[in-house]
This record gives sequence, structure tokens and C-alpha cells, in this order.
Amino acid sequence: MSARYLLPYAPDAIGGLPADLPALVWDGDGPVPPADALREVEFFCLPYMRHAVALPVIGRLPALRVVQTLTAGMDDVLPHVPDGVEACNARGLHDASTAELAVTLVLASLRGVPRFTRLQDQGRWQQEFHQSLADKTVLILGYGSIGRALAARLEPFECEIVRVARRARPEERVHGVDELPGLLPAADVVVLLTPLTPESHHLVDAAFLARLKDGALLVNVARGPVVDTAALLAELTAGRLRAALDVTDPEPLPADHPLWHAPGTLITPHVGGPSSAFLPRAKRLLRERVLRFEEGEPLTPGA
Amino acid sequence: MSARYLLPYAPDAIGGLPADLPALVWDGDGPVPPADALREVEFFCLPYMRHAVALPVIGRLPALRVVQTLTAGMDDVLPHVPDGVEACNARGLHDASTAELAVTLVLASLRGVPRFTRLQDQGRWQQEFHQSLADKTVLILGYGSIGRALAARLEPFECEIVRVARRARPEERVHGVDELPGLLPAADVVVLLTPLTPESHHLVDAAFLARLKDGALLVNVARGPVVDTAALLAELTAGRLRAALDVTDPEPLPADHPLWHAPGTLITPHVGGPSSAFLPRAKRLLRERVLRFEEGEPLTPGA
Repeated sequence: MSARYLLPYAPDAIGGLPADLPALVWDGDGPVPPADALREVEFFCLPYMRHAVALPVIGRLPALRVVQTLTAGMDDVLPHVPDGVEACNARGLHDASTAELAVTLVLASLRGVPRFTRLQDQGRWQQEFHQSLADKTVLILGYGSIGRALAARLEPFECEIVRVARRARPEERVHGVDELPGLLPAADVVVLLTPLTPESHHLVDAAFLARLKDGALLVNVARGPVVDTAALLAELTAGRLRAALDVTDPEPLPADHPLWHAPGTLITPHVGGPSSAFLPRAKRLLRERVLRFEEGEPLTPGA
Repeated sequence: MSARYLLPYAPDAIGGLPADLPALVWDGDGPVPPADALREVEFFCLPYMRHAVALPVIGRLPALRVVQTLTAGMDDVLPHVPDGVEACNARGLHDASTAELAVTLVLASLRGVPRFTRLQDQGRWQQEFHQSLADKTVLILGYGSIGRALAARLEPFECEIVRVARRARPEERVHGVDELPGLLPAADVVVLLTPLTPESHHLVDAAFLARLKDGALLVNVARGPVVDTAALLAELTAGRLRAALDVTDPEPLPADHPLWHAPGTLITPHVGGPSSAFLPRAKRLLRERVLRFEEGEPLTPGA
């Protein structure tokens, strides 16, 4: 029996799948299975954080019908997907981990964790006054699946939440991006969650940043190029704004890049997804998608 | 008209108080008002974070009826309060700020913020796998006003919450401390919020810590002596447990104390209360208490 699935985990590790599922396992670390074994693969799930080695494999799957990612963003994948092949992102999979990292970055920045870490390394007990999330206005830019997870986590913190998406959705209290100029001056914190598209490239430019109030915090857990790095660096260096960045442009950030040492800046190395929350949710999503594919149902109903 | 109130803020800064409130203002920084001016003071609100200079003033108020603190803990104040004088803590005032710091410490520790801060200082982009709060079990020890605020903030994070107080309150799903031995082995995170009393002194000792699973995180936002520092240090040094401590014993932590450099340990210098959330809530509480005192009503109804 030839394999119809190329998956990063064995079906019995995923659980809840037919024992005889015709699947080949490739996690992106070992050698790519030979052409012969790939001949009938219809469903390819890219191994997480192995896109560099996995994307070229797409071209070696003549029977391919579905490319499934374990990432929310597809910007790096779409150019490799042939016409007529369905590309499915992992909508929902990273909601918990990424929304949680966004809250982590907001709280750690406001409450001074990087500062206290450095004082700790010097053995200095120095009580200081820092900002609280309470009473602040947090603007979420890119209000989709992760945005909703973020809002749910922020809501109990006694802060105001402003939701912004490409298009206004008044029934969900979501503003459209066209309203941004009027909304930005009220924000204490802006969290970027927008996917990287031609429209969102450098959406956060000098004019965007200039509208933010002094001391405002910009948090990027989306994609680096949503922000014009040079414009942000100018505001950070002037000490006017603060930032917490899980993604950067360029990425990875070179060792000698001035962003590393910009004042009021916290940088984490793109770890919104990779956490202990990933694996159980990845398996759950993959199980659901494979079962739908087996039944010939739409993979992402309602999407 | 002699002053009946000695307050850290002027009545018009507090707002909502009678214009002719007979109040003296002393914020703990300037000289203490002369004995003559203090002769009729009945209500004394201790200036926040100035207890060292404020506690001796209690003995100079012959008409005193109420000592009001702006702290949740009263352990340092009670020995100075004469018989027949009511001592009121600031129950509720620090809920937002302290619960928020507890979440900050949990998230920053689990998601690796101190580690990434140190990598940032070296200009190193090094993607790593860290723990997520999602799927974890968080045990809150000391489930009162701040505990409820903490639970409300943790709830959306897809974690399990176990509530423990001095006595079980099944209607609130609160366990009694006597159940701790059976509850500790399941906890991934333990957050200490219990007041410091003779019973809670060294409640977290070697036996308590030994019941925690490998890699568990202890978060102390209560009082330092709730934890036996030597016992904790042994577990941290062995790399078996992790800790995030906003309070320590001794406190302040001397520069040469080994806790500063214990592995897996994040230390903040008792900043649960002092944040931007403090002042608006302090004024609100003080306004309410003064108005009740003016009306001759119980200061803390239902407490």
C-alpha cells in the first residue's frame, strides 16, 4: 500500500486515527523519503520549524492535493504551493501559546522584568515604581483567532481593549484599519498580530509610530516586516517609545544589530509558537484534518 | 478647628470628600506635624512604603481611634497599635497590582524572559523551547481577596487552578491547608499569597518543597518568611525546582546572598504593590473609609 500521507508524527503518536492509515513519517530531521515512496502522497504536513528543508519536498509530490502547515503564518509557504493544491494553515493551533507570549511580553515590559533581571545579576535590591497593565488601553492590531485568545486573556486585567482588523466588524466591536489614525493616540500598548501581506508590510512606519503617545509600548508577535525597523529604532533610541519584539526584520537579528541594545526594548527569538503548549494542540489539529480528509470533507469548515 | 484626620494625601487630591474635612496632610517625607496639631487626630492613614517613619507617630496620637494602612499585610503594624484602636488594612487595594505581578512572574519564568534578557544583552538570537502556562496546574496558597483576583486573571490561560486557604470552603472550591500534602504533587506552579502569621511562618519548608514535582515553580508574592529560605535554596541549587520571588527572607536581600544567583530563580524587589495601579485605588479606598468614618459607619462592613 502506498502512502497517501506524509506526516511529521506517527499516526499512533497523533492518536485517534485509523490503525491502517497509509502514512509515511518524516519530521524534517532525517533524510527525505525516496521519490518512489512519495509517488502517491496527497496530504503533506510540513514539519514545524523545518520549513527550510520541507518546502523543496512539495515539488517532489506528484499526487499532492493538500499542504498543511503547523504555523499560523503562510507567507513563506504560499509561493511553493502549486496551482490546484490546497494550502491549509494551522489556524487556532498557536492561539494559546502566542496569545500567552503576547501577555508575557506586555507584563514583563510594563512591570520591569528585564530591568529586575539585570539588577538581580548585580545582586542589587532596588525597589522601583513600574507601570501596571491595570487602567491601560491595549490596542490589538490584527483581530483574528489569536487576537480573540489575547483579548480573552487580557480582559480580567482591568484594562481597556481596542480591537482592529482589516475590515470593521461592529458586531464584534472590531474597528477597521482605516480608523487607526484616530485610535493610536489613546493606546498605551499596541500588540501586532496581523499576518504579513503586501498591505501589512511596514504598516507600522514612522507616521504610525509618531501617533503613539510618549512611553507607549509596541509588542510584535506577528512578523518582523510589519514594522519598519529603522523607524522603530529611531523612536526607541530617542527613549520616546518602548518595544517588546518576538519577531524582527531582519530575522534572525544579527549580533551587531543596534536593536539588541536599544533602550526600553525586550527581544525574544520568535518563540510565540514553540512551547509546551504546541505538541498536544498540533496533534489535535492534525488528527482532525486527517480525519476530515479521509472522509472527503472540507478541511477547514467555516473558514 | 483641630485636625481629626492625618492623611498621606490632601482631601482635594483624594476627591469626593467634604471641602472642610479637618485633615492634616503628612506623606512620610517631610517633618512630622507638631504634637499640638496631632492632639485630636482620630484617624491616621500610614503613608505607603513609609512605615519605618510612620509607626512611631502612632504613639503620639492621644485621640487615635483608627489606624488605616495602605498595605494588605499588617504584620509590621499590629504590634504598634494600642488596645482599643481599630486597625484597618487595605483589603482589595493591591488586588490588581499584586495579582498582576504574580501572573507576570509565572509567565516570565515559564516562557524564559530572564533567559532571553541575558541572551539579548549578548546579542544572541537563540530559539529555545520553553514551558507554557497552558495545560499547567497552578496551586494558589492563601485564597482571599488577591487570590480571587489572581484566579480571575489565570482562568483564560487554559490552565487548571487549585485553591487553598486556611480552612476549606467547598462552595468556592477552596481546599483547606490540611489537604496540602495530597495537592502539592500535582502542582506545576505554586503561588504564595498567604499573610504572615505564626502558622504560615516557614509553611513552605523542606517537607513542603519535597512534595513538589521536578521542575515545579514556586512564586512568592506574600511575605519572605512564609518560605524557609535555606530549604528553598537547597532545591534551587540542585536544579530540581524553580522560583520567582517578589519577597525574600532576609529582605532586602543582601548583595552577597546566594539566592541572587541560584539557578532558575527570578527575583523582583517587593514590587507587588508599587505600580501605576496603586494611586487611583489608594485614593478610592481612602475616600470610602473616610466617608464611613465621618458617618460613624463600620469601616469594613462584611469583613
